[in-house]
Amino acid sequence: MKSFREELWFELPTRRAFVNITGQLENCLQKSGIQEGLLLCNAMHITASVFINDDERGLHEDLERWLEKLAPEHPHSQYRHNVGEDNADAHLKRTIMGREVVVAVTAGRLDLGPWEQIFYGEFDGKRRKRILVKIVGE
Amino acid sequence: MKSFREELWFELPTRRAFVNITGQLENCLQKSGIQEGLLLCNAMHITASVFINDDERGLHEDLERWLEKLAPEHPHSQYRHNVGEDNADAHLKRTIMGREVVVAVTAGRLDLGPWEQIFYGEFDGKRRKRILVKIVGE
Amino acid sequence: MKSFREELWFELPTRRAFVNITGQLENCLQKSGIQEGLLLCNAMHITASVFINDDERGLHEDLERWLEKLAPEHPHSQYRHNVGEDNADAHLKRTIMGREVVVAVTAGRLDLGPWEQIFYGEFDGKRRKRILVKIVGE
Repeated sequence: MKSFREELWFELPTRRAFVNITGQLENCLQKSGIQEGLLLCNAMHITASVFINDDERGLHEDLERWLEKLAPEHPHSQYRHNVGEDNADAHLKRTIMGREVVVAVTAGRLDLGPWEQIFYGEFDGKRRKRILVKIVGE
Repeated sequence: MKSFREELWFELPTRRAFVNITGQLENCLQKSGIQEGLLLCNAMHITASVFINDDERGLHEDLERWLEKLAPEHPHSQYRHNVGEDNADAHLKRTIMGREVVVAVTAGRLDLGPWEQIFYGEFDGKRRKRILVKIVGE
Repeated sequence: MKSFREELWFELPTRRAFVNITGQLENCLQKSGIQEGLLLCNAMHITASVFINDDERGLHEDLERWLEKLAPEHPHSQYRHNVGEDNADAHLKRTIMGREVVVAVTAGRLDLGPWEQIFYGEFDGKRRKRILVKIVGE
């Protein structure tokens, strides 16, 4: 069994953003040399997400408005976590979007459906944060 | 390390439905010959879900009503994604329900709790769609 | 390839609770002797969750209030599942929080970010319930 590990770092200029990382994960897979197995990709921070959906701008705007409705940022004081913090909403938004994805590796490729794209979801940006890529297989 | 891959296809007559796929996944596991490892099952479409919950009709009705409250289908025009599309709500519903499950394989069986059943969750049906089953282990 | 399996049991005195299980999972990993691979930890019950977030009391209070807003327990009669049952809300809350986490194992350690802690989330307690820990690797 082979294993491969890499961290990918981000420093986004806005509090919230979605970044398509599919290409970076394909690069990791190439470097790993793994042909058959599983790829785990997870946020290493608890106010960020890795998720799979469509790379379509309108949908990303819908996601932003929807998450803001389900777990609004303001007023910061509505959350008990926000004592010397202001990011409780980011913890909740990431809970809906999920921490991680597990993707099959088949014949040396990410085994994705035709529209599946992998995203980093940032909900408390403007600082350096990272995700973990772990690939195991043969 | 062994690996096994299979696609399961669905064409459901309604926009939304839940289908118990536990038996089909057990069949995949038998075919794979894998005794110890992990099974990944994921929707290959971004308007569908694979999830684990109870096979109980009342609960499925509750899920349908609850998802419709959190991410209503109508009016289609409330979503920016819905320009030439009408399935933005399906992307959001699948986000809540999750894309994938990872299930332990122990002694050649799906290592599930007593009430755990695995479902395909369709949120934009009436067309051919598929899920991926990937099993790795020994 | 090595594999390791263990069940962890809980009997919590309240209907809802969050329990930090990171230390117990590290103990499982030590016992397994696995250095590189993946750890799956999932609730074996469909009214409970395993999730990763911050070990911060204010945040846990926010999560409790937020889940109660999105999927209220009362009135029990609002749910069709609640015929001879009263835990439909627990099925919905667990859906938001997620069934499972997959964590990378690197150099014999759980490969977690600096604030990542793993929790058992109970939404229908006061009885014996369990989670599954499965580790595969080398």
